[in-house]
Amino acid sequence: MEVYFDNSATTKPIDEVIEAINYGMREFYGNPSSLHKMGIKCDRELLNCRERLANIINCTREEIYFTSGGSESNNMIIKGLTKSGNHIIISGFEHPSVLSTCKELEEHGVKVTYLDVDEFGQIDIEQLEESICKDTVLVSIMHVNNEIGAVQDLDKIGKLVKEKSKRAKFHVDAVQSFGKFKIDIKKSNIDALSVSAHKIHGPKGTGFCYIRKGLSLAPLVSGGGQEKGFRSGTENLPAVMGMVKAAEIIYKDIDDKFNRTLELKRYFINRLEDVKDIRINSPLNDNISPYILNVSFIGVRAEVLLHLLEEKDIYVSTGSACSSRHISTKGSHVLNAIGLSEKEITGAIRFSFSSFNTIEEVDYVIEVLKNSLTFLRRVKI
Amino acid sequence: MEVYFDNSATTKPIDEVIEAINYGMREFYGNPSSLHKMGIKCDRELLNCRERLANIINCTREEIYFTSGGSESNNMIIKGLTKSGNHIIISGFEHPSVLSTCKELEEHGVKVTYLDVDEFGQIDIEQLEESICKDTVLVSIMHVNNEIGAVQDLDKIGKLVKEKSKRAKFHVDAVQSFGKFKIDIKKSNIDALSVSAHKIHGPKGTGFCYIRKGLSLAPLVSGGGQEKGFRSGTENLPAVMGMVKAAEIIYKDIDDKFNRTLELKRYFINRLEDVKDIRINSPLNDNISPYILNVSFIGVRAEVLLHLLEEKDIYVSTGSACSSRHISTKGSHVLNAIGLSEKEITGAIRFSFSSFNTIEEVDYVIEVLKNSLTFLRRVKI
Ligand SMILES: Cc1ncc(COP(=O)(O)O)c(C=O)c1O
Ligand SMILES: Cc1ncc(COP(=O)(O)O)c(C=O)c1O
Repeated sequence: MEVYFDNSATTKPIDEVIEAINYGMREFYGNPSSLHKMGIKCDRELLNCRERLANIINCTREEIYFTSGGSESNNMIIKGLTKSGNHIIISGFEHPSVLSTCKELEEHGVKVTYLDVDEFGQIDIEQLEESICKDTVLVSIMHVNNEIGAVQDLDKIGKLVKEKSKRAKFHVDAVQSFGKFKIDIKKSNIDALSVSAHKIHGPKGTGFCYIRKGLSLAPLVSGGGQEKGFRSGTENLPAVMGMVKAAEIIYKDIDDKFNRTLELKRYFINRLEDVKDIRINSPLNDNISPYILNVSFIGVRAEVLLHLLEEKDIYVSTGSACSSRHISTKGSHVLNAIGLSEKEITGAIRFSFSSFNTIEEVDYVIEVLKNSLTFLRRVKI
Repeated sequence: MEVYFDNSATTKPIDEVIEAINYGMREFYGNPSSLHKMGIKCDRELLNCRERLANIINCTREEIYFTSGGSESNNMIIKGLTKSGNHIIISGFEHPSVLSTCKELEEHGVKVTYLDVDEFGQIDIEQLEESICKDTVLVSIMHVNNEIGAVQDLDKIGKLVKEKSKRAKFHVDAVQSFGKFKIDIKKSNIDALSVSAHKIHGPKGTGFCYIRKGLSLAPLVSGGGQEKGFRSGTENLPAVMGMVKAAEIIYKDIDDKFNRTLELKRYFINRLEDVKDIRINSPLNDNISPYILNVSFIGVRAEVLLHLLEEKDIYVSTGSACSSRHISTKGSHVLNAIGLSEKEITGAIRFSFSSFNTIEEVDYVIEVLKNSLTFLRRVKI
């Protein structure tokens, strides 16, 4: 049995998505900027795609901008909205594409406040309130954290930002929540939002931003003036068509999928009860996504456990995938932020689900886990 | 008959490319950053793709970096290599993704020299030589111009840059030449190069840069640290696999394809002899690409002619596609740069070929052109 519990790293494109992309490559290969009817046909389809995404998050199609993915969306929005002398507020456990963007901006005269998070990964709302000042131009908070699944209360944060400041914009990194949670731009007072297609069984290399009408930003990629000048480069229509297909499929029966995944996670946690010396870093909890289960196996090196699991065709992560290979950290910055001990961080594994995962897969993983742990704890690797 | 003579705007992905992308989406959907064997398998394939591209342009695989396309590659290289106080030299008729990047940099304290081009689109080599100074960090020159097809002598420019400066890097926008001309990084002394996949029958939304080993640049998109920290974001492996497939196919029998296209263009120009009041802006000439033929139809508005052609299923461009819809220019900056009159610019059409085009298509286009021109010149639209 092959079990893919690494859906927060990336997902397998579903057949209908692949079909949509193929259809796009064969029938909509024109350049949407061309003046002839092939170009116009592509431009119309692009507009249609904007409209369908706008419907999902309750904005207008004029507010949807296509990018190459989550990292670019985050960089484009944060760098595009701030300049020297400005102040930004982010949580201390944002994705590297937000964190390192802010570190860069600090070198260019931007002040950054990093909000504390508690043991469940909830940001400190009072600290947020106190931090907003006249220079604050941006509050950027991720909806669902990619390592432990902590969910922030967007309504509350959006309301607070708007009450405290006329100037500050509210940006949400929704890469791990889009397709799993309902997102309502208006209800949550969101000014900008980042989404990536490959986390929702869509294609890689594509994503979108929502940017509130009237907001203007300096482009990251300038040139031909596509995406109203916010993001130049020939539009990747076939991939966009795949992303829209994925978004519509994943938002169909979303409550059902959510509840089934919650059941799966509940079952997984119940079955973990037989396993000794563990810490569940993403417990069942209204403020934690059912799609992510982070567990520390005390006395074990997560990377070694990961390799024992992969031998049995089980795929999981230590920390987050995007940083596993490239950034040499002293353990995960997220697990550090929620206050885990070094031992707990060393043994932390992230299981991340999609609505395609099954109870049988959990059973198989539990059996392999038990055997692997018995082995590891005996040989003390 | 449908005739696509707009291959410089974008190209139709070939079947083998679509197959390669599908294979990638089904079999290599893992995240190359994941530590498990699915991730490692993807990371290896990514390396394999780098190697195959490196072979084509005579560099090493460590020098290949994947991006979302030509515009991003140009922005990333130019912005990444320059800072306030530096001096850059570009030609006056670069693509907007180079031109507007430089305009932006000027606002941030970078000095830019715009080299003149002659009537055939050749840069002024003496002016280049005189312009290089101690502050010059970058000379960025496009290999083939996208509107008229002018080809620059990279060997000569690269040699000159290296002779005149130890500091200045030589960047080449090869978006319109890769796949049509042989490119040898070493022979031409190139330090950085930009390529886009969708111009060579590959997928949209993908491209690559070559960046000489040892060169370091500030990232445009920062985050998880992919592409050695130069370009963060989950790698788009399926599209990269499609791009590599396209590159290998297009470079197979490249001389043959080049000569066939040259024949096609020669035939087109011969057949245009019957047509009155035209100016051939891209004549047959060693310094002009066979893949582009720009012609001014005097007394005619190019856009009107374009629409008459599209009614007969013939697809062409006025100016370049990427700027047709978005930038409101007073006529093409390229045709201005080579000294065309307003009348000549107003009536300019770009026919751009791929090696799949045929003599029969040219015959059909000539017939339709003649009829359309007779009509237009009679009614004087
Ligand atoms: C929360 C979060 N933001 C941003 C990203 C970056 O997305 P992408 O890989 O599409 O650049 C990721 C993916 O790793 C993520 O989990
Ligand atoms: C010379 C040149 N450079 C750069 C680009 C931009 O490439 P892309 O559309 O992949 O961003 C183009 C395409 O229009 C081009 O012709």
